[in-house]
Amino acid sequence: MISRYFKKKIHNLRISKTCSVKDAIEKQVNPNQIITVYGWIRSLRKMKNVTFALINDGTTGKNMQAVLKPDQGKGLSTGCSVKLTGLYRTTQGGSKEKQEYELHVNDLQICGYSDPSSYPLQKKHHDLEYLREKAHLRLRTESMSRLLRLRSFLISIISSFFSNKDYIQTHPPILTSSDCEGSGKIFKVESSNESDNFFKKNTYLTVSTQLHLEALSHSLSKVWSLSPTFRAEKSRTSKHLAEFYMLEAEISFINDIEDLMSIVEQMIHDLVENLKNSSIGNEMITENYKTNKRDQINLENRWNFFLKEHWTRITYAEAINALKNSSVHFKFPPKYGHDLQTEHEKWLTEKYTHSPLFIINYPKELKPFYMRLNNDSLKYEDHNTVSCFDLLIPQIGELAGGSLREERIDILKQSISTRKTHLSNLSWYIDLRRWGTAKHGGFGLGFDRFIAYLAGIKNIKDVMAFPRWHQHCNF
Amino acid sequence: MISRYFKKKIHNLRISKTCSVKDAIEKQVNPNQIITVYGWIRSLRKMKNVTFALINDGTTGKNMQAVLKPDQGKGLSTGCSVKLTGLYRTTQGGSKEKQEYELHVNDLQICGYSDPSSYPLQKKHHDLEYLREKAHLRLRTESMSRLLRLRSFLISIISSFFSNKDYIQTHPPILTSSDCEGSGKIFKVESSNESDNFFKKNTYLTVSTQLHLEALSHSLSKVWSLSPTFRAEKSRTSKHLAEFYMLEAEISFINDIEDLMSIVEQMIHDLVENLKNSSIGNEMITENYKTNKRDQINLENRWNFFLKEHWTRITYAEAINALKNSSVHFKFPPKYGHDLQTEHEKWLTEKYTHSPLFIINYPKELKPFYMRLNNDSLKYEDHNTVSCFDLLIPQIGELAGGSLREERIDILKQSISTRKTHLSNLSWYIDLRRWGTAKHGGFGLGFDRFIAYLAGIKNIKDVMAFPRWHQHCNF
Repeated sequence: MISRYFKKKIHNLRISKTCSVKDAIEKQVNPNQIITVYGWIRSLRKMKNVTFALINDGTTGKNMQAVLKPDQGKGLSTGCSVKLTGLYRTTQGGSKEKQEYELHVNDLQICGYSDPSSYPLQKKHHDLEYLREKAHLRLRTESMSRLLRLRSFLISIISSFFSNKDYIQTHPPILTSSDCEGSGKIFKVESSNESDNFFKKNTYLTVSTQLHLEALSHSLSKVWSLSPTFRAEKSRTSKHLAEFYMLEAEISFINDIEDLMSIVEQMIHDLVENLKNSSIGNEMITENYKTNKRDQINLENRWNFFLKEHWTRITYAEAINALKNSSVHFKFPPKYGHDLQTEHEKWLTEKYTHSPLFIINYPKELKPFYMRLNNDSLKYEDHNTVSCFDLLIPQIGELAGGSLREERIDILKQSISTRKTHLSNLSWYIDLRRWGTAKHGGFGLGFDRFIAYLAGIKNIKDVMAFPRWHQHCNF
Repeated sequence: MISRYFKKKIHNLRISKTCSVKDAIEKQVNPNQIITVYGWIRSLRKMKNVTFALINDGTTGKNMQAVLKPDQGKGLSTGCSVKLTGLYRTTQGGSKEKQEYELHVNDLQICGYSDPSSYPLQKKHHDLEYLREKAHLRLRTESMSRLLRLRSFLISIISSFFSNKDYIQTHPPILTSSDCEGSGKIFKVESSNESDNFFKKNTYLTVSTQLHLEALSHSLSKVWSLSPTFRAEKSRTSKHLAEFYMLEAEISFINDIEDLMSIVEQMIHDLVENLKNSSIGNEMITENYKTNKRDQINLENRWNFFLKEHWTRITYAEAINALKNSSVHFKFPPKYGHDLQTEHEKWLTEKYTHSPLFIINYPKELKPFYMRLNNDSLKYEDHNTVSCFDLLIPQIGELAGGSLREERIDILKQSISTRKTHLSNLSWYIDLRRWGTAKHGGFGLGFDRFIAYLAGIKNIKDVMAFPRWHQHCNF
């Protein structure tokens, strides 16, 4: 015969509410209720009369403390997945600061064991290179799971930002027969059955969706995309990947590079403001404080840096002059007409300016064929600049770049032929200027770099779930 | 000397508000105000004393009627881009039904001419194949611009749907060394400088983000992606592309295929409900009624079809029986253990059921290695089925498919070896079952197919801005 107490317990278990750790911790379910949660064990503390387990299901960075009877703790170890049912109630004992509530487990089921002797994620500290080799498992670390939530959050904020301003989100093609940058560092695509000659012509992975976005902007006025892009660069630096996400926007009927820069400034402002006021932002600040004390990366300072009013704008010529007058001894002496080196960017962003820095009007020889020649440039041979900007920030260097696009068909054709870019594949692009062209411009922002900077991650390979770079395409 | 009237006019022009056609039509700006709009001329009607121009800027399907003096109309033609400033006021004369307000233009500037004798988008009807050859210009047609707004709208609704349910949006890799379906119809990627051997191993474009989503779901519980996927299929049907977008989701701690189906049902319900109540939805219904009367595609019926409660679920075995008992003469007689043919799907969705149709529990031989063997299957050799579903709808056939994933490591390994799938590249995937596995499942939905169905577009090549298919990768 079932006792009255036991009957009641069964009844309670039956009406238990299944919820996420996030729901429980953010009190979307009432405490003092029977709940069921699923998750993975982050850590275990076995004592004589009780076992404490911290449970995480990835919905939040916070863990739920589960209180188990000693025999329930048998066979459990870090990494196990479990289903727990019990009373969710105020934490008893002294640890109230850390855990306001805890789960008193009535029923425990192990969904998946984890053999502690073989599990590659041990409690000990793993270096980042080791974790990259275990990319499929490092997703389960607290820091990677936080980065994944951050990425998701930023995508949704960016979507709202553009949607509120009537930009249309588009899906420009990944496969293309037009090479946007003309750098040659591109990936070629063909059917794995090579005899097929699948596309009849050479086909590549896109390095930027810009050219196609321009076509789209000539129909929809304002468009954007968040799209994978590819570079076959042999670089092994901490800032480069072979596959990465670019946030790009293109706007018709824009007359001035200033309008473009203010959109970028506004967008980043909005993003960072939202991040600061979000629970993921809060989580990042808390965790960063705990773990990164010695590294001296102060996330809040980084974020506030973006919130400064009136970011600095200088011309390329002014930048060169400032570098020349800086009395710093550079390995590569700054020289008009030459690219800015990392050491130059470093000085400009860390010593010269106290906000993100827009450098505008580069000499046309340093920039791709599609950028709009400044009107001055048509008159004075020595001021051959294009209407563009690079946005520089400390540590990262170039975060975003944009330009007005050359809408004047003759100047565009000349610019293409001067660069010996293969014109035949661009005839459709030139067409855009042939009928109903408009002054227009756009920008691209390295989304993964931006995440790395916001999160204080030094190597871009550590913000992507499955990073791909030279000699590395595992999984 | 400037007259007082003229002074006032100049003053007004100076304080004119620049706005989009959408803002003006939806009265985000006050009528009886001087405004500036940019856009392209959709059509021109030149009369003796006045010229009417319909202006579109892609922000809405509706056009703004601009009223020009005859001399302002000189040099204008369809496709021109213009900047117009004038008084936005109640339409005068009889056309009140069509245009509540119109723009009385004071100042007109042509941003880009369009030579009517060469412009490839003439007023006459162009067939769809011709337009596909002009993909960079067909974006400017009303129907393509509407589809692009629809796509953007659906992306934002899907994002909200998942975000409200605490799913994390992820960016699984496009480049991969693991072939998910094992079909062999895949694209190979290498550096355009082939001597590089860039990744040291064979690298492909992903055919589905599923395997990587599974890894992500074992950290974050619930994940989704809207990602480009690729198939090197030589198919030239109206339903296939070489590059297309897949909406995929993966959920840990799911025990039953029924749970998965109800998520798909709920998601599509939510999407269609939102579409019905949106301005783009309204625009589509209105336009479809105008243009497609003869084609008999009734969009509202299509949408309402998805809003039916309790979509039908039958097993594969029941489907085969129903087909056998249908007394229809099929070209391919239905037979247990064989794939359903298009004619079978057509009968099932158009004659047998009156809602979207889930067919579950296919024989394992018909499905990929990762699907979960039904528990029955372990006992009875003759019921070797897997826990999966295909979602069928009329005209399209398979819209979505999903399954529980085999989480039991031994059964998974056996399933892989039976299919002679190359196991070495999947060792990371098997690892997911080695430590802390969980019952899980997910689904994929062909996003472009879905758009085509919702919009009543017959060929999937006409819903993508720049479609890629066998022998076609222009632009």
